[in-house]
Amino acid sequence: MNRDQALALDAADPLAPLRAHFHLPEGLIYLDGNSLGVMPKHAPARVARAVEQEWGEGLIRSWNDAGWIDQPRRLGDRIAPWIGARPGEVLVADSTSVNLYKVLHAAMQLQQGQRLRIVSERSNFPTDNYVAQSVARAHGGELVLVDAPEEIPALLDERCAVLMLTHVNYRSGRMHDMPLLTRWAQQAGCLAVWDLAHSAGAVPVDLLGSAADFAVGCGYKYLNGGPGAPAFVWVHPRHHGQAFQPLSGWLGHAKPFAFTPDYQPAAGIQQYQCGTPPILGLAALDAALDVFDAATKLGGMAAVRAKSVQLCEAFIETVLQRVPEAAIESPRVAAQRGSQVSLSLPEGIDAYAVMQALIHRGVIGDFRDGTPPLLRFGFTPLYTRFAEVVDAVEHLRAVLNTGQWREPPFAARGAVT
Amino acid sequence: MNRDQALALDAADPLAPLRAHFHLPEGLIYLDGNSLGVMPKHAPARVARAVEQEWGEGLIRSWNDAGWIDQPRRLGDRIAPWIGARPGEVLVADSTSVNLYKVLHAAMQLQQGQRLRIVSERSNFPTDNYVAQSVARAHGGELVLVDAPEEIPALLDERCAVLMLTHVNYRSGRMHDMPLLTRWAQQAGCLAVWDLAHSAGAVPVDLLGSAADFAVGCGYKYLNGGPGAPAFVWVHPRHHGQAFQPLSGWLGHAKPFAFTPDYQPAAGIQQYQCGTPPILGLAALDAALDVFDAATKLGGMAAVRAKSVQLCEAFIETVLQRVPEAAIESPRVAAQRGSQVSLSLPEGIDAYAVMQALIHRGVIGDFRDGTPPLLRFGFTPLYTRFAEVVDAVEHLRAVLNTGQWREPPFAARGAVT
Repeated sequence: MNRDQALALDAADPLAPLRAHFHLPEGLIYLDGNSLGVMPKHAPARVARAVEQEWGEGLIRSWNDAGWIDQPRRLGDRIAPWIGARPGEVLVADSTSVNLYKVLHAAMQLQQGQRLRIVSERSNFPTDNYVAQSVARAHGGELVLVDAPEEIPALLDERCAVLMLTHVNYRSGRMHDMPLLTRWAQQAGCLAVWDLAHSAGAVPVDLLGSAADFAVGCGYKYLNGGPGAPAFVWVHPRHHGQAFQPLSGWLGHAKPFAFTPDYQPAAGIQQYQCGTPPILGLAALDAALDVFDAATKLGGMAAVRAKSVQLCEAFIETVLQRVPEAAIESPRVAAQRGSQVSLSLPEGIDAYAVMQALIHRGVIGDFRDGTPPLLRFGFTPLYTRFAEVVDAVEHLRAVLNTGQWREPPFAARGAVT
Repeated sequence: MNRDQALALDAADPLAPLRAHFHLPEGLIYLDGNSLGVMPKHAPARVARAVEQEWGEGLIRSWNDAGWIDQPRRLGDRIAPWIGARPGEVLVADSTSVNLYKVLHAAMQLQQGQRLRIVSERSNFPTDNYVAQSVARAHGGELVLVDAPEEIPALLDERCAVLMLTHVNYRSGRMHDMPLLTRWAQQAGCLAVWDLAHSAGAVPVDLLGSAADFAVGCGYKYLNGGPGAPAFVWVHPRHHGQAFQPLSGWLGHAKPFAFTPDYQPAAGIQQYQCGTPPILGLAALDAALDVFDAATKLGGMAAVRAKSVQLCEAFIETVLQRVPEAAIESPRVAAQRGSQVSLSLPEGIDAYAVMQALIHRGVIGDFRDGTPPLLRFGFTPLYTRFAEVVDAVEHLRAVLNTGQWREPPFAARGAVT
């Protein structure tokens, strides 16, 4: 794909108006929205209102007057349609890791000690496996990891309590078939827990249609909720009031302001709240969800997904043409891929240094170490343009052609990527 | 105490310059800083920088360039001197409830199943007891609650794993003798876990001097960190690397960016981090801690405590003079009291309605239901003036004299207080 073709796609893009909602830093091609989404232009004003008006002027009165107390459920209701859930089923709270801990414990408790294994993938995002290890051990069980998805069915037996999967893999971008794997798990008596960190807001998710059991997800990636934004948790209504999570803080209590000595879990998703909600983080996420309202009017998830697939394919096609020495490490079939494409480079080319050189040129993707080391490019349909995709590949070509990556400081590894 | 005497105390107050650091809403006497602290004037700019510059412009690069990744420990180091801890011992993360869950599990695990009881007070803030119930049950144990502090020693026996106390009681303001109770607990082989929610930033706390085992505390009360500010957690260095907490998210891992499949806890307090830190909330708390730096230069905790005691005594003295029908429900001895005073009213006077009428008059305190129902007044030495204390009591006198509390809407109970 050449630049003119990309510009033609941008001109025809029904979601193109959404880009105006975001602050894209001058001179930057940002392909890392799957790590931290771009700031919506009105987020500063929304956060400033929470700080200056709601906190500064309203003070404690804002728990009622500004609706702070309802924000975790209200924002959950706003996320719900983007993950195939209904109002009252989603709560915004804590971090993805903490929420995963809650739902894994709830799921293990539903299995009543009859099944002790959590099954997942070795390639899962580490925090998921770390948390699952902890929960499995707390129930006297174990975390069992597969090296390839094909090994999953054989592990769905009477020992397996929970199949815990991340819908879209953070390294490869490979997307699981949620309805199919959920069905397989449940047919074997297992519960299905899904991490939507790299899915929510970017790819179609149908939790209710899949009859999944539990899900968690991230507020600061494709949802653009800001750095360390609160995460979300979803529980299938059939488990409301049946499954219990152990982080039994006061705001998950049936009557939090009655201050009774015994914990009585709230009905419904509210039980998954623990402590006091992080109001400033919620305000930024609230602003970010406004853009999704605008996206609904421009075709909703169907339009988002269509553009996401187009962006990924434009990238793959251009890489194949212009950087043939790179290997595409993400699935080539769109149905098996999230909204990202990862590349590896031949031995002898330091992928870390290449990404540093790209960043120096204003093309921000991610480096992910491992086997093989990866250049990861995330495509956020709400603000990414096709012209940027083509330009990013040209920069990659230039970094490799000029050997820029061999120069200091790119060739020295930093602390955090 | 009359208004002239109060004004004289204000004129002589060495901490008086600190008030200029805060935004006090026009016409408001705010005596609820133990529920949500007042906004520091420079908090909006600090949060705006985090939003517009660090997120908006820096995007993912800010994890390094703006030091986001170090914020939980850096802010912990800033809180440390106010609670008698050293740098490297305090982490800012999650909510108080979630942090309490971590340290209670760590403490129970240190007891290796030899002791199964957590001992606390029925009058503790509910979230503490709810979380303790959950943790005790997870270890096959139980939460045992006393009705009066005098019953505690008898329960410190070979069955008691953990003595969990809130240093300053949220209802009565009664302050425990931390060194003494910690010593008693440890002499009996128990571990001492302290909740500093109503202490940090308002009363002297000496965790190391008390040789306490674990502590947690709140960022949005006397520390003025903003609504739902992240909380803090402290672990005595002797337990670093010895005690383990189960919320094993990636940022508590020894090498979070190595993405290894097995969880290896980080050394030191870092292990108590779980998920990605809430950057916007941390920014507001960071701004709030600047005021504590200024307080250090004006006499530090000794000056803060001296003024806190004076404020409480001015309030008590004025209530005794002007509202003799009210009962002082907080300890009269300053050494046994935090930075608040709670009142009860004779039967027949609806304390809830009285507080609503006070709020309508611009005097914000808290109503806390229970036996007896309480009017709670918190005094934040960083911004509260003696004149406000006297004026607040005059408003209370006026509400009772005029019978204003009997009028609608004050006499109808709302949802949240």
